[in-house]
Amino acid sequence: MRPYELSLAEAARAVQAKELSPVELTDSVLGRIDAVEERLRAYVTVDADAARRSAARAEREIAADGPRGPLHGIPMALKDLIDAEGMPTTASSRVRAEHVADSDSAVAARLAGAGAVLIGKTHTHEFGYGLTTPQTSNAWDHSRVAGGSSGGSAVAVAAGEATFALGTDTGGSIRVPAALNGVVGLKPTYGLVSRHGVTSLSWSLDHVGPLTRTVQDAALVLDALVGHDPRDPASRPFALRGDLFRQEGDLKGLCVGVPRNYYFERISPEVEAAVRRAVARLQELGADVVEVEIPMARYVQAIQWGLMVPEATAYHEHTLRSVPELYTPDVRILLEAGELVLAGDYVRAQRARTMMRDAWTRMFRHVEVIAAPAVPTTAVEAGRETVEWVDGSVEAVSDSYVRLSAPANITGVPSLTLPVGHDHAGLPIGMQLMGRPLHEATVLRVGRAYELAGAGTGRLAPIAA
Amino acid sequence: MRPYELSLAEAARAVQAKELSPVELTDSVLGRIDAVEERLRAYVTVDADAARRSAARAEREIAADGPRGPLHGIPMALKDLIDAEGMPTTASSRVRAEHVADSDSAVAARLAGAGAVLIGKTHTHEFGYGLTTPQTSNAWDHSRVAGGSSGGSAVAVAAGEATFALGTDTGGSIRVPAALNGVVGLKPTYGLVSRHGVTSLSWSLDHVGPLTRTVQDAALVLDALVGHDPRDPASRPFALRGDLFRQEGDLKGLCVGVPRNYYFERISPEVEAAVRRAVARLQELGADVVEVEIPMARYVQAIQWGLMVPEATAYHEHTLRSVPELYTPDVRILLEAGELVLAGDYVRAQRARTMMRDAWTRMFRHVEVIAAPAVPTTAVEAGRETVEWVDGSVEAVSDSYVRLSAPANITGVPSLTLPVGHDHAGLPIGMQLMGRPLHEATVLRVGRAYELAGAGTGRLAPIAA
Repeated sequence: MRPYELSLAEAARAVQAKELSPVELTDSVLGRIDAVEERLRAYVTVDADAARRSAARAEREIAADGPRGPLHGIPMALKDLIDAEGMPTTASSRVRAEHVADSDSAVAARLAGAGAVLIGKTHTHEFGYGLTTPQTSNAWDHSRVAGGSSGGSAVAVAAGEATFALGTDTGGSIRVPAALNGVVGLKPTYGLVSRHGVTSLSWSLDHVGPLTRTVQDAALVLDALVGHDPRDPASRPFALRGDLFRQEGDLKGLCVGVPRNYYFERISPEVEAAVRRAVARLQELGADVVEVEIPMARYVQAIQWGLMVPEATAYHEHTLRSVPELYTPDVRILLEAGELVLAGDYVRAQRARTMMRDAWTRMFRHVEVIAAPAVPTTAVEAGRETVEWVDGSVEAVSDSYVRLSAPANITGVPSLTLPVGHDHAGLPIGMQLMGRPLHEATVLRVGRAYELAGAGTGRLAPIAA
Repeated sequence: MRPYELSLAEAARAVQAKELSPVELTDSVLGRIDAVEERLRAYVTVDADAARRSAARAEREIAADGPRGPLHGIPMALKDLIDAEGMPTTASSRVRAEHVADSDSAVAARLAGAGAVLIGKTHTHEFGYGLTTPQTSNAWDHSRVAGGSSGGSAVAVAAGEATFALGTDTGGSIRVPAALNGVVGLKPTYGLVSRHGVTSLSWSLDHVGPLTRTVQDAALVLDALVGHDPRDPASRPFALRGDLFRQEGDLKGLCVGVPRNYYFERISPEVEAAVRRAVARLQELGADVVEVEIPMARYVQAIQWGLMVPEATAYHEHTLRSVPELYTPDVRILLEAGELVLAGDYVRAQRARTMMRDAWTRMFRHVEVIAAPAVPTTAVEAGRETVEWVDGSVEAVSDSYVRLSAPANITGVPSLTLPVGHDHAGLPIGMQLMGRPLHEATVLRVGRAYELAGAGTGRLAPIAA
């Protein structure tokens, strides 16, 4: 196995055992970038020199004192909404052509503190405001979308161009590209991971989290990211419940809810079959599986857009007036539409969110985890704008991609997606595991049990030569 | 001294000592209502029979087991936005003519649990949306406004028609009428006291708190009200810092900030003189007095109205369409204007609030308490719409009344007002003491020290025969 193929846990073990040096690992990842990046275009910026210097420093530190932790010397990428000192934060937008971050974001500082090696910055759908990331190709089929908005991070991890990456998730932007590229993505509990120094899309829905090749790796990265930060108004001095690294093969007595409404409506039959098989596997592992009714499901779309659109427009207010022509047309139209929204609609969305959070809290009294599809379909062809469902209805691709992700943004509950199979074309399918606020350990435990049962996480996408 | 003249602490002591029975005290208060209510019109509803039954029950309980606490057997009133089971909650509006509460609000339940005797429901400016409470007369001069929106509660306490009362405060609605009627009013830290069962004006600014005749009484009532309640989305499992009942004559080493900007601008010279004298008294009591700069002061009005107007309109959305003619014209105009506010303006107000909270947090690193006027002037004549200042500027009465109160609503910090003198016409003047979030004990300690120094809290308004 070449170093770039190793999962974070495997690489960390090899570094710890002195079987692998951070420089060797970083060179392997940079070599992989040279080999596949032209086809994938996952990165906005790769700073190979800085990465090599950082890897050499990690190597010296580890030689002297051993690794500070599992991230020490591990190459990783940041979505290009996340500031890293001295590097551009372009948000994949011409609006940000001149922007260079003068200090680290909270998460970049935490990863640097843990000794991780920053390889570069990955493409986002412009300013995070879209579900496809058009600059980047799907790692499994270059004619298909990467998903978004953290498309670059998902593809980089799926292709071995980074051992792990960070993304942001406002309506599914970590989980959608993770699912569509066959990797693991975790949107943590709202307020758990600081967003200081991260370009905002919609502050009441924005989250930062890891994209990795295994569930175990997601736990390792999350552990490094968590911490109260008064510079992010949403950050809270939360304590996670349970042990993120608890490893058990069985799920005896754990109650998993499967939605009887909403999550299995208007989805591809192949996605449904794969997720139901994965749920059956959880049951074999000892979980009690029960049906649950998702409350207030018909308000999800109105709440998500009702909150996101005016908040996004407010963030872009000045540049939307000064340099509107620098935005891509789809993002500019969304931002300009936001200027017309009435306060009453926004306020109604806020009130409905509060009610939905309460209703989800009541639902979670009866189950510990909700298992559901992450995305209703696999990756669509680039340029395609709509999906047609078996009932004859037609839906915008962005609406369909956000539909099953948004409830976890609205309610703030943690949500993990992990690969659970492929469709007839070989494209990956993701299962979403949602849990109670701060119970990341529980969703990770369920995902990890599935992973340990040999379900195929950790594999790289088969990039055509 | 007749029983209705006693402060809560005095009455509680007398009840505890078996010198006074709850029935006797309640009858005395009901007799006082008979004597003065025709002139004051503090109450929407007085239920004398229920009050007497409740007093008789408290009397039996106390005879059997002694008082459960200082509120046991004490007559009190609730602002008519606060639900009490089986009684109308009219919000002083024709819109609510048919509304009877089918259960207690959280605070009514807490007071009932503490054994307090509910006398009735007091007038509010319609739905809390105004600063005068036109139905009610000022306790000190019947030709002048009571202030609002908790005007009925302030007048009832000032006149001996209740031993204490509860009000709500969205932009000063506890503190303004308290100041204008010479009583004590406390707006607690945002999220500390549950608003479940309380008619909302603007949920991100609404607070429930006590109106009393002494600072000591405010501490006694607050103590009974505090507690986490998941039914109020803003409620937090807060722990108050310090001891609410700490009593010391001196304030040695305590740092009191006096604003050099904002709070002493455009105020009546008599109000300024009285507050500065009171601050000098705090200094004599040992406090270190320093000047402070109030940050972002010029945004206060825009933030307060930018948040309040759309939230209020959203709350009234359905009745505003179905029965608009039942609102009084001033409230209806404000509510209808709220339909035209753009989401961007509301979102900007939210962002500015977050920045102002942060700036106040930084300011409060240097001082423990801010001392300032509560209201720029004393009670104006009923019907007057504007105030003219010495600089020749003219201001709406409601704008002037909300101006010095709103910062504590926007930032969520606790704010106490207590009487510190009278103007040439004998009208009361209030001083506002603001503290760090959850440091109610500190503002109460400062107010209590001032009170113990003999500054004239606890007196009833001199109601003309």
